[in-house]
Amino acid sequence: MTDTRRADAEAKAHILAEAMPYIREFSGKTVVIKYGGHAMDSAELADHFAQDVVLMRLVGMNPVVVHGGGPQITDLMQRLGKEPEFIDGHRVTDAETVDIARMALVGKVNRDVVVSLNQHGSYAVGLSGEDAGLIAVEQRDPRLGFVGDVTAIDPSILHRLLREELIPVIATIGMDESGQAYNVNADAVAGAIAEALGAEKLVYLTDVEGVYANFPDEESLIAQIDADGLEALIADGRASAGMIPKLTSCVQALRNGVSRAHILDGRVPHALLLEFFTREGIGTMVSGDIRPTGEMT
Amino acid sequence: MTDTRRADAEAKAHILAEAMPYIREFSGKTVVIKYGGHAMDSAELADHFAQDVVLMRLVGMNPVVVHGGGPQITDLMQRLGKEPEFIDGHRVTDAETVDIARMALVGKVNRDVVVSLNQHGSYAVGLSGEDAGLIAVEQRDPRLGFVGDVTAIDPSILHRLLREELIPVIATIGMDESGQAYNVNADAVAGAIAEALGAEKLVYLTDVEGVYANFPDEESLIAQIDADGLEALIADGRASAGMIPKLTSCVQALRNGVSRAHILDGRVPHALLLEFFTREGIGTMVSGDIRPTGEMT
Amino acid sequence: MTDTRRADAEAKAHILAEAMPYIREFSGKTVVIKYGGHAMDSAELADHFAQDVVLMRLVGMNPVVVHGGGPQITDLMQRLGKEPEFIDGHRVTDAETVDIARMALVGKVNRDVVVSLNQHGSYAVGLSGEDAGLIAVEQRDPRLGFVGDVTAIDPSILHRLLREELIPVIATIGMDESGQAYNVNADAVAGAIAEALGAEKLVYLTDVEGVYANFPDEESLIAQIDADGLEALIADGRASAGMIPKLTSCVQALRNGVSRAHILDGRVPHALLLEFFTREGIGTMVSGDIRPTGEMT
Amino acid sequence: MTDTRRADAEAKAHILAEAMPYIREFSGKTVVIKYGGHAMDSAELADHFAQDVVLMRLVGMNPVVVHGGGPQITDLMQRLGKEPEFIDGHRVTDAETVDIARMALVGKVNRDVVVSLNQHGSYAVGLSGEDAGLIAVEQRDPRLGFVGDVTAIDPSILHRLLREELIPVIATIGMDESGQAYNVNADAVAGAIAEALGAEKLVYLTDVEGVYANFPDEESLIAQIDADGLEALIADGRASAGMIPKLTSCVQALRNGVSRAHILDGRVPHALLLEFFTREGIGTMVSGDIRPTGEMT
Amino acid sequence: MTDTRRADAEAKAHILAEAMPYIREFSGKTVVIKYGGHAMDSAELADHFAQDVVLMRLVGMNPVVVHGGGPQITDLMQRLGKEPEFIDGHRVTDAETVDIARMALVGKVNRDVVVSLNQHGSYAVGLSGEDAGLIAVEQRDPRLGFVGDVTAIDPSILHRLLREELIPVIATIGMDESGQAYNVNADAVAGAIAEALGAEKLVYLTDVEGVYANFPDEESLIAQIDADGLEALIADGRASAGMIPKLTSCVQALRNGVSRAHILDGRVPHALLLEFFTREGIGTMVSGDIRPTGEMT
Amino acid sequence: MTDTRRADAEAKAHILAEAMPYIREFSGKTVVIKYGGHAMDSAELADHFAQDVVLMRLVGMNPVVVHGGGPQITDLMQRLGKEPEFIDGHRVTDAETVDIARMALVGKVNRDVVVSLNQHGSYAVGLSGEDAGLIAVEQRDPRLGFVGDVTAIDPSILHRLLREELIPVIATIGMDESGQAYNVNADAVAGAIAEALGAEKLVYLTDVEGVYANFPDEESLIAQIDADGLEALIADGRASAGMIPKLTSCVQALRNGVSRAHILDGRVPHALLLEFFTREGIGTMVSGDIRPTGEMT
Repeated sequence: MTDTRRADAEAKAHILAEAMPYIREFSGKTVVIKYGGHAMDSAELADHFAQDVVLMRLVGMNPVVVHGGGPQITDLMQRLGKEPEFIDGHRVTDAETVDIARMALVGKVNRDVVVSLNQHGSYAVGLSGEDAGLIAVEQRDPRLGFVGDVTAIDPSILHRLLREELIPVIATIGMDESGQAYNVNADAVAGAIAEALGAEKLVYLTDVEGVYANFPDEESLIAQIDADGLEALIADGRASAGMIPKLTSCVQALRNGVSRAHILDGRVPHALLLEFFTREGIGTMVSGDIRPTGEMT
Repeated sequence: MTDTRRADAEAKAHILAEAMPYIREFSGKTVVIKYGGHAMDSAELADHFAQDVVLMRLVGMNPVVVHGGGPQITDLMQRLGKEPEFIDGHRVTDAETVDIARMALVGKVNRDVVVSLNQHGSYAVGLSGEDAGLIAVEQRDPRLGFVGDVTAIDPSILHRLLREELIPVIATIGMDESGQAYNVNADAVAGAIAEALGAEKLVYLTDVEGVYANFPDEESLIAQIDADGLEALIADGRASAGMIPKLTSCVQALRNGVSRAHILDGRVPHALLLEFFTREGIGTMVSGDIRPTGEMT
Repeated sequence: MTDTRRADAEAKAHILAEAMPYIREFSGKTVVIKYGGHAMDSAELADHFAQDVVLMRLVGMNPVVVHGGGPQITDLMQRLGKEPEFIDGHRVTDAETVDIARMALVGKVNRDVVVSLNQHGSYAVGLSGEDAGLIAVEQRDPRLGFVGDVTAIDPSILHRLLREELIPVIATIGMDESGQAYNVNADAVAGAIAEALGAEKLVYLTDVEGVYANFPDEESLIAQIDADGLEALIADGRASAGMIPKLTSCVQALRNGVSRAHILDGRVPHALLLEFFTREGIGTMVSGDIRPTGEMT
Repeated sequence: MTDTRRADAEAKAHILAEAMPYIREFSGKTVVIKYGGHAMDSAELADHFAQDVVLMRLVGMNPVVVHGGGPQITDLMQRLGKEPEFIDGHRVTDAETVDIARMALVGKVNRDVVVSLNQHGSYAVGLSGEDAGLIAVEQRDPRLGFVGDVTAIDPSILHRLLREELIPVIATIGMDESGQAYNVNADAVAGAIAEALGAEKLVYLTDVEGVYANFPDEESLIAQIDADGLEALIADGRASAGMIPKLTSCVQALRNGVSRAHILDGRVPHALLLEFFTREGIGTMVSGDIRPTGEMT
Repeated sequence: MTDTRRADAEAKAHILAEAMPYIREFSGKTVVIKYGGHAMDSAELADHFAQDVVLMRLVGMNPVVVHGGGPQITDLMQRLGKEPEFIDGHRVTDAETVDIARMALVGKVNRDVVVSLNQHGSYAVGLSGEDAGLIAVEQRDPRLGFVGDVTAIDPSILHRLLREELIPVIATIGMDESGQAYNVNADAVAGAIAEALGAEKLVYLTDVEGVYANFPDEESLIAQIDADGLEALIADGRASAGMIPKLTSCVQALRNGVSRAHILDGRVPHALLLEFFTREGIGTMVSGDIRPTGEMT
Repeated sequence: MTDTRRADAEAKAHILAEAMPYIREFSGKTVVIKYGGHAMDSAELADHFAQDVVLMRLVGMNPVVVHGGGPQITDLMQRLGKEPEFIDGHRVTDAETVDIARMALVGKVNRDVVVSLNQHGSYAVGLSGEDAGLIAVEQRDPRLGFVGDVTAIDPSILHRLLREELIPVIATIGMDESGQAYNVNADAVAGAIAEALGAEKLVYLTDVEGVYANFPDEESLIAQIDADGLEALIADGRASAGMIPKLTSCVQALRNGVSRAHILDGRVPHALLLEFFTREGIGTMVSGDIRPTGEMT
């Protein structure tokens, strides 16, 4: 072995060894990951994501993936000659639209995520919130049509799949008591599922670096904050509009037993591995207890 | 209780009691059901089907549902302004078409079946053949594009779900070695899965009464036949064109360990219950050993 | 299929389908059935009973059968030249009588029930209350000799048998601390066992239609009542003498965790199936919450 | 501690320690014991027997007890005014007699054995050969009526009970295909059950010291013999008449997988403990391989 | 069998039968045994001890052996030319000494115990308190060097071994937070482990007959005492110096959930068998409730 | 995040991701590692080794560590004033020496390895080959005294420990039939244990870069070879003397079911991680099938 190769090899080995205490810490823990944005659009990042999630499964963690797919719904609607309409940022969803949403989310986005994960091992199973009573909803507002708010999560199907060491991938279609399908906000679903599973962690992959103290001032990126802090941010109007559903879901999940939440930059390759298996935390961590600032970017 | 009500009640009770030996016989047995045709189109028959399958699960059987959805694919293609094209009855399937097929089968048909089953208990989980290496395929003919023939079934995901007492509902999209999705014939998939699971029974729900000795002579309905007989029918050109893929798949499954196959009339309400839990067998049963003609319609 | 046969088949299928929600509801639930009277004397009804209990087992319920056998004890005593003697309706039971009672109950009645059940599958195991400390008793009254009152039930042998999916059939001989056998009232034993098992239901098969509000006015049959109501009936002296031990045991079991009790007419063929698997409840149901009158006969 | 007490204590301790290798050897092994004769008649010996069997269970063995009860059947017949009749030593058994036999064996003898065992812990469960298809028989000879020969043993109920660490106690009533009860020879049943269970040992408790080379010469007691030797004894007419069913059953069981059989003197207190847990083998051991004479009495 | 041999056999059998209720009582119970003194030095007594412990394991108990080895440490130190030094009876333990202690305890004494046990079956596994965080300690006194006091026991490794039906044999080396090894008092470790396991019994094998009310008056041997009594003895200065660590550990273990403690005379052959499996309790039993004096020596 | 930090983070993430397919491949596989030489002497390398082995355990592999300790035996002998003597390179081992060897290996080396592993999680359990019949030996040569050759491995204790997810660390003391301890060659033990466990891999950590085609020509390092090739090397006299026991053990293990063997340079930090979890294989791999040279250093 040449000296250079030896040095390279040593560097590699140290990085692997560095992961050991984290693997030990997270073994057997459940992590709910809201997947979306650039990390889902880019073929390369999507493959990185798949590698990361499979690696988490392989080292004994229980990852659960939740995804929506607004752009894909819009795209299919337009191909079918139907113009999307929004009220206060919520898609107006008539019976035909919820059918289209289902085709786009379950028949396209969910499939692509499952296939991508299964390129690295046969672990992923696609689910819709309609399966086995997983996501129960009620109508948010008659004007929006079939847009639902989560009323209950029945995690038993997830427990069964996790017991068989499979990776659930959940498309966020919910069902009301009559069996009618609804489109549901994926950020809210991720939080509710984390809560129902008593997850160790709830992770949002986003297209920003994290949470900013003074959005959009990039210097104001917050490394760590707690649930009270997040609530203050939202109350003060300092949070960006797009971030609010995530932050609200974080707060609720943390108030109900989830240990920690993370807002990660999904544009960073292998963001999950970096967060879980290296000293370099990335993005914003939300918890009740502050770790020393020095540890964070 | 009035006399009429008492007589009614007695009649009911006897019918339930009649089911007992059949429940005992089939407890723990796996049954693969190819679902389609009128039984899927009619809302009422679909609900009957769902009740039947859930009842089979409740009394200890392991039902597995396989479905295609040609009309739904054609419909979505047309809505998207794409004209279906066929060569020798096989749909020419370019990259866009396989994506549409996936949306229609996984995002629409599979969902509808799963939701329908779960109206009667939280048991069903939707799967695509892409999940966990379930259906491996190779290209049939370059002219047809992404139309696949089954090369292997990996039933491990099905074993895991059955172990958890869930009902797998399988959309017949397959995957080749490169991860490319293919459309696959659902009749062939049902047979291959029955074979891979060592199923007790393989059931086809069709829109005819059963197999005819001299199609289309309705008097020639066959109550019971064996694999050799089926092969002779096909060889003689006496089988209807639409029936051939089912019959061929039956023969192969029976030659490879499946005990019995049934071609049932899906237009009969609760056809599965009648076949499994009453003295009245319906349709055509295919096996190696003939049961006395008197027992059959 | 002719039209008549098709209509018959459809009717059959609907009755089976109607059972599905009940099967789902009762799956895994324990039901203690006090068996006796005409349903035990008639060979035909006895076979119906056996079919019903085996069907309950097959669809996932845990039936437990409890029986006495006063007439059979009397019969064997007389054949052995020993004249039965009663004080206040209780059999005076000397050492020889308890031995005869044991032979009649365990060696004859219990055997007949077990054999009858096992005609429909190998599930039943005969037990005496002497087995594995099942029924502990103390002497009721020195004048009655070896007539015991239940002081404790040790259900562990029942749990073991139910875990192995067997049907316990219990002859109501009890044992005191010294190992002495006693005859025990079967109605009381059924209630005590239901209580010890935390059973979902306690069922008495009797030779009357149910509980009457004004015995013997047949028009006053009660479809549904709660434990308070039963106590009032007993206190008011409106209950028939033969019914009092059953009603008292019902009340005690319901006060101690059993969900519902049923007084059924054992002369109706398949009374258990009708009660458990159809909309037609029969006899009298005793609970804490009233179901709408319209649902009951 | 005085010297005498110390010496006594030491002696005791050595005897216990001597048992250790035997406990190790037999742990997890199944032993079928045919119980009868003086060991069953004497209250003291019966209690010793119960202690021995419970101790075997406690140290991890799986004892199975088989018993008949000819004298008790005769006694009950006579009390019922029915005179026993024999052809070639076999009881002529009409329908009433088999009913009486069942009452005597199941309702009296079996009960007494179960109660006796359960004085030392809650482990014993009484069974009849009618339970769960345990003993299938066919008629031996129409002149004898309901006297059956074993045609098949279904040991599944025994496996279930042993899995729950219970002690099956089997009364030798068998059942033919029509559900008719038969009286069966208990020696033959013991051998057939040992064979069906693949038992390590088959033990006959008798009222003689063992097998004699020249019956009735008491000096000719055989310490050890193999299956061939036993067959020769029978063929030569040197075996006593009462011993022949035991010896024949031994030979058949040994030819079909049982490792060893023992003919023990049931009149010796704790004969089972002596045979299983001390260096002093007693009675006659039958095997395929001879152990040095020095080891045996 | 001669009369003498028969009498001997009967005596043997009775002793074995006498053990039965004790085996039943202790089945599944955990017993921690501090092993040492003459019982360890004498080859014959050591083999008796090994037989006793293996027999306890065979009859379903969970024995755990704890040992020190002061003389062996001293011996190895002297062979290595290092003179032992003591302060207030505690060995001054520098870095080299702890290394020597480890070699003597783990590499010599522990090995000898394990090998001795495994002569009677493959059940024993040697452990040091350093294994799997078993014994956590802190420094007692800087002047003593690496002499530790137990701060915590992590019994998970013991649970794993007991679940696999193995016999843990523990050398009393502990570890502080930095991974440094310490010598620890074996009497204290035994009590702490009994407490951490929620053991049924804690047993000290010593070189005296038991605890004396007025040491060294041999007439004052105490058959039974409770924790309060022991504390009074210690407070009064009536306990011998060598006994104090044992008595203190007993009191603490009894105060924290251990049911009983025994101070046994390890010079009596098979002292454990006598205590556990015969009516003759030996030595001193310490509990909260007094058993009638008559039962004790 | 600065650009440099981001680049560093990406590099880290890629290295972790690179490990994923290897983790998947080796999950559930057993690997026997012969530990020794410089990797054991250097405190830093020893900690790297511990990290590597614990990481292997954490990602689902079953590592088993085997070690000797010749230098430590020699050292303790000399401290005890005993001069080591060798015949043909084998240590002459009298009764005192084997005792010393045991103290050095079990009480010192084994302890140090176990403690080092447990710094990173409570997983390691120290074993001697005397435990539970693990290593059975016979005397090699009377002139050498207690030097043993492996005659049998009883892996049942290892299976029990691996089932509990523990890491066995084995000191190579063996035992003959009489219970006498022997010193055994650790290279031979590692091979025999790999064989007995049906291990996926057998790894030797050495103080050289690997196997040389022409020892000591450093240019002749062999990246890959098969068992035939190794035998040829030994036969030709081209192997170094110190390497011969390892190579012979490799060949035997590979001939008996072990899939691959590796001779790794223990002086490279994290040699195990590099070999198992990166593309850079190091040292010499011995198998039956050649992987392309390009993949190897």
